Amino acid sequence: MANFKGHALPGSFFLLFGIWWSVKYPFRQCWKRSHLQGRKRLPLLFDRIDFVEGSLKIFFAFVGIMAEQFVPDGPHAHLYDRQGNAWVKLMNWQHSTMYLFFGISGVADLLSMSSLPVPLGIDRLGLALALFVEAFLFYFHVHNRPHLDMHIHSLLLVAVFGGAASTFLEVFKRDHPILESLRSSLAILQGTWFFQIGFVLYPLNGPEWDLEKHDNIMFVTMCFCWHYAVALMIVAVNYTIVWFAMQKCTRRETSDMEIGLRKTLSPSDASSQKALLHDSEEE
Amino acid sequence: MANFKGHALPGSFFLLFGIWWSVKYPFRQCWKRSHLQGRKRLPLLFDRIDFVEGSLKIFFAFVGIMAEQFVPDGPHAHLYDRQGNAWVKLMNWQHSTMYLFFGISGVADLLSMSSLPVPLGIDRLGLALALFVEAFLFYFHVHNRPHLDMHIHSLLLVAVFGGAASTFLEVFKRDHPILESLRSSLAILQGTWFFQIGFVLYPLNGPEWDLEKHDNIMFVTMCFCWHYAVALMIVAVNYTIVWFAMQKCTRRETSDMEIGLRKTLSPSDASSQKALLHDSEEE
Amino acid sequence: MANFKGHALPGSFFLLFGIWWSVKYPFRQCWKRSHLQGRKRLPLLFDRIDFVEGSLKIFFAFVGIMAEQFVPDGPHAHLYDRQGNAWVKLMNWQHSTMYLFFGISGVADLLSMSSLPVPLGIDRLGLALALFVEAFLFYFHVHNRPHLDMHIHSLLLVAVFGGAASTFLEVFKRDHPILESLRSSLAILQGTWFFQIGFVLYPLNGPEWDLEKHDNIMFVTMCFCWHYAVALMIVAVNYTIVWFAMQKCTRRETSDMEIGLRKTLSPSDASSQKALLHDSEEE
Amino acid sequence: MANFKGHALPGSFFLLFGIWWSVKYPFRQCWKRSHLQGRKRLPLLFDRIDFVEGSLKIFFAFVGIMAEQFVPDGPHAHLYDRQGNAWVKLMNWQHSTMYLFFGISGVADLLSMSSLPVPLGIDRLGLALALFVEAFLFYFHVHNRPHLDMHIHSLLLVAVFGGAASTFLEVFKRDHPILESLRSSLAILQGTWFFQIGFVLYPLNGPEWDLEKHDNIMFVTMCFCWHYAVALMIVAVNYTIVWFAMQKCTRRETSDMEIGLRKTLSPSDASSQKALLHDSEEE
Repeated sequence: MANFKGHALPGSFFLLFGIWWSVKYPFRQCWKRSHLQGRKRLPLLFDRIDFVEGSLKIFFAFVGIMAEQFVPDGPHAHLYDRQGNAWVKLMNWQHSTMYLFFGISGVADLLSMSSLPVPLGIDRLGLALALFVEAFLFYFHVHNRPHLDMHIHSLLLVAVFGGAASTFLEVFKRDHPILESLRSSLAILQGTWFFQIGFVLYPLNGPEWDLEKHDNIMFVTMCFCWHYAVALMIVAVNYTIVWFAMQKCTRRETSDMEIGLRKTLSPSDASSQKALLHDSEEE
Repeated sequence: MANFKGHALPGSFFLLFGIWWSVKYPFRQCWKRSHLQGRKRLPLLFDRIDFVEGSLKIFFAFVGIMAEQFVPDGPHAHLYDRQGNAWVKLMNWQHSTMYLFFGISGVADLLSMSSLPVPLGIDRLGLALALFVEAFLFYFHVHNRPHLDMHIHSLLLVAVFGGAASTFLEVFKRDHPILESLRSSLAILQGTWFFQIGFVLYPLNGPEWDLEKHDNIMFVTMCFCWHYAVALMIVAVNYTIVWFAMQKCTRRETSDMEIGLRKTLSPSDASSQKALLHDSEEE
Repeated sequence: MANFKGHALPGSFFLLFGIWWSVKYPFRQCWKRSHLQGRKRLPLLFDRIDFVEGSLKIFFAFVGIMAEQFVPDGPHAHLYDRQGNAWVKLMNWQHSTMYLFFGISGVADLLSMSSLPVPLGIDRLGLALALFVEAFLFYFHVHNRPHLDMHIHSLLLVAVFGGAASTFLEVFKRDHPILESLRSSLAILQGTWFFQIGFVLYPLNGPEWDLEKHDNIMFVTMCFCWHYAVALMIVAVNYTIVWFAMQKCTRRETSDMEIGLRKTLSPSDASSQKALLHDSEEE
Repeated sequence: MANFKGHALPGSFFLLFGIWWSVKYPFRQCWKRSHLQGRKRLPLLFDRIDFVEGSLKIFFAFVGIMAEQFVPDGPHAHLYDRQGNAWVKLMNWQHSTMYLFFGISGVADLLSMSSLPVPLGIDRLGLALALFVEAFLFYFHVHNRPHLDMHIHSLLLVAVFGGAASTFLEVFKRDHPILESLRSSLAILQGTWFFQIGFVLYPLNGPEWDLEKHDNIMFVTMCFCWHYAVALMIVAVNYTIVWFAMQKCTRRETSDMEIGLRKTLSPSDASSQKALLHDSEEE
């Protein structure tokens, strides 16, 4: 994995999930807000979405483990080389371990979505543990490397530990819009930062970076903040788009409802109904 | 205690308690879930179980202290050797101290289970303090040792401090199923990790480990995550088993109840009663 | 910015905002307390105040970024000097980044004040992130400097990280008077401490400080506590002033109301009305 | 203060307050428990006790500051010696600063007890800040000292920071019996540990301790846990004593009440009244 692609791949997944969450959660919040007066349970659609998300997590985790193990220079499921008295490709094994926990998180998602009596919040615990394990392994991963390499990876840890802590809070404060946005933004940050690590350590074209220069470290620290500013912007833009789209759909629905209502109710009643709708939106 | 048995013994206890908790708490949760409509108080059985658990803790703590003090090469309750101007067997004294706090935790369990007006949550505080003291003593325990020895013990600290923090949260969020599962899994992790420490530092058969090799440290870090994956699996399997067993018992009870009901109620009423039962299960 | 003015400027802003908050929040609390029986929504005045505050934040952030970029010895929006193979004026870029996040916090303030369906608490998250980013950049800012310089900046971090944590708590405990006072006092502390840093590192008149002397470090640590004592006093004094002023206004209002009431109600009713008012004040 | 008395004095105060709290809070809890059915407000007695406590804090803080300043070898309110170009007796100034914050905490106690509309929880914030400042100053206090000296002081920090954190939690979880017991026990721990520091660093009679020996550090760490076990025991014993005393008083009161009741009510009513009392006790 010590090349650009090895950082771009996990980066893409975190970016994907981050962006996806920044669409899913506002969608769900807006739905709740606009359907307050109707039924309380979310429609089956949301369950199906969660089902797909959980399955994808498991699938990606499985593919990731297989790829790490059976790429040409992988360990091929050998852990210890008795002849050479050495561990075989520990890096690949560590990455497999990370994927394993994201797979477990996927299983927890599926379970908590199913009709089984699983304790509420097990999906958030699963994700928090997966992020914690990722950060935990990275933390002991980067010793004895050049200064900039260590620093750029330890910045990643800020995003990952932050994500783990924020997701763990969600166990207790489920469906809290701020925590959901925070998680989305931190996932996007992690994704783009993986790309940044790739660009810095394995530049595609152009000169190599001086891994010991202090100015580079200062720039990279600042650059991390810029990435987060961009992540926040993406979350905000997606929130706005989802809200506008929902607004349109709801209005059409409302006007359909009104047409139906006009047939049965007097106009004054229909307007009070409309007022009610607006009221629950404003809340 | 610097041998394999010295690590296997505490490991067994933590493993035992972890597995026990991973059975007890799901049992209690399932009971509550299926008896919602009936009486609110848990049956005496649960109180008796807690009584046994607390008593066992005190008993084990007492035995542990006695063993540490009066093994042939123990301190025999001598703390300071005035002739030699030296402390006597501080390791054994430290272990005794750890056991003492688990004993205090056992007393807190008994008190909180009794009918005395003890503040709610004192059992969790007692356990959190016992785990904190264990981690606290281990933290200052492992200086000036080979690199791998220090690392493998500091990984243990992650499990113990994590358990202390999670148990302290339970003071405020009592009977939270996620926290209870977390505590069970961390206790199992601690148990199996004690065994792992024993296998690594005092290999039963086979070659000694190189305590300074960096690859060994990397492997051990990863291995810790595998232990946790196994611990999570054990908790999940026990939860499932308990749930299925309870399901069966409840069904039998329900059908008994229905037979009773059919005699007194009309069939339609009985079915609504059944629907109610299912409802409370789904919740 | 490595001069006295460069520390006095940010110091003034934090001092200003701290003092402003120590007036605004008691004002709002007293208002709520004395108007409990009336309408529940805060009057438009508060929204307008928040609007001005948010706009000022954005304005100051914009001016700050422009100033950092386009002062004579600034980077003039150049980031990398290809000829010299070096980053251009990274300090100025870092300060710009800090201002950027305070600007984002200002945008979050405006959004959360508007009638748009923004998740509640996004203004506090914005401020917490801005403070976190400030502390984060400062943390990696001060390596390789004389001992006293590092120490005096790391004391600043206590105030900034403390402020970030306390503001993040406000996401969940909105309108908590203690947290609001804590935030105000930490902002004032940060403001006065910036001045202190300026006085110590770039003394206006008088001798230079010995940056390696241990006694200076001890004094500075203690001095930080004195600054906080002063900050607490300012918050307390402002609270008292606001409360007395509000008391007077409310009394006048109440007596006006009573005059109106006396015309329409019997004296006994009016007195019960008065009792009600006192009751809600006491609560 | 670098002698035995200098550690015994603050130790006595913390011990005193810890023991006092371990009596006051159980007393208050038992009172609430047994007077549930009656009036909800605590009697004036409690307010008077809090008034005395706050006043004592301010008095002790004032005396402490005066003593630190005006002992024969104190700074006599001189901060900087312009001739010698040196700070005057910084240790005494640091201790004065600590006392100042406990004085502020005392003022916060008085304010929160008064009828003024002070935000609820300001007394806990004041105490948390005082403990934080104490720990903060101690943290930078103990550099460049022998190993055991540093270690024994850093153990003190565990008690003080723990106390600060637990007291800060009380801002949000007011009147939580577990947090109150935790605070009492940590205050007692701090008190007895001050004495222990005095005994170790300035032995009254007997040989000096070897400040670099590793075994001494190990013993001191363990000894800290023993102190905490004793502190927990003191809290438990005081709780029991208070509860038994209250029990007796309540019973007498109850039987007095019953005598009164028997005169006016039928026996069956009186017994139901008694059942009610027992019920509220059990809860």
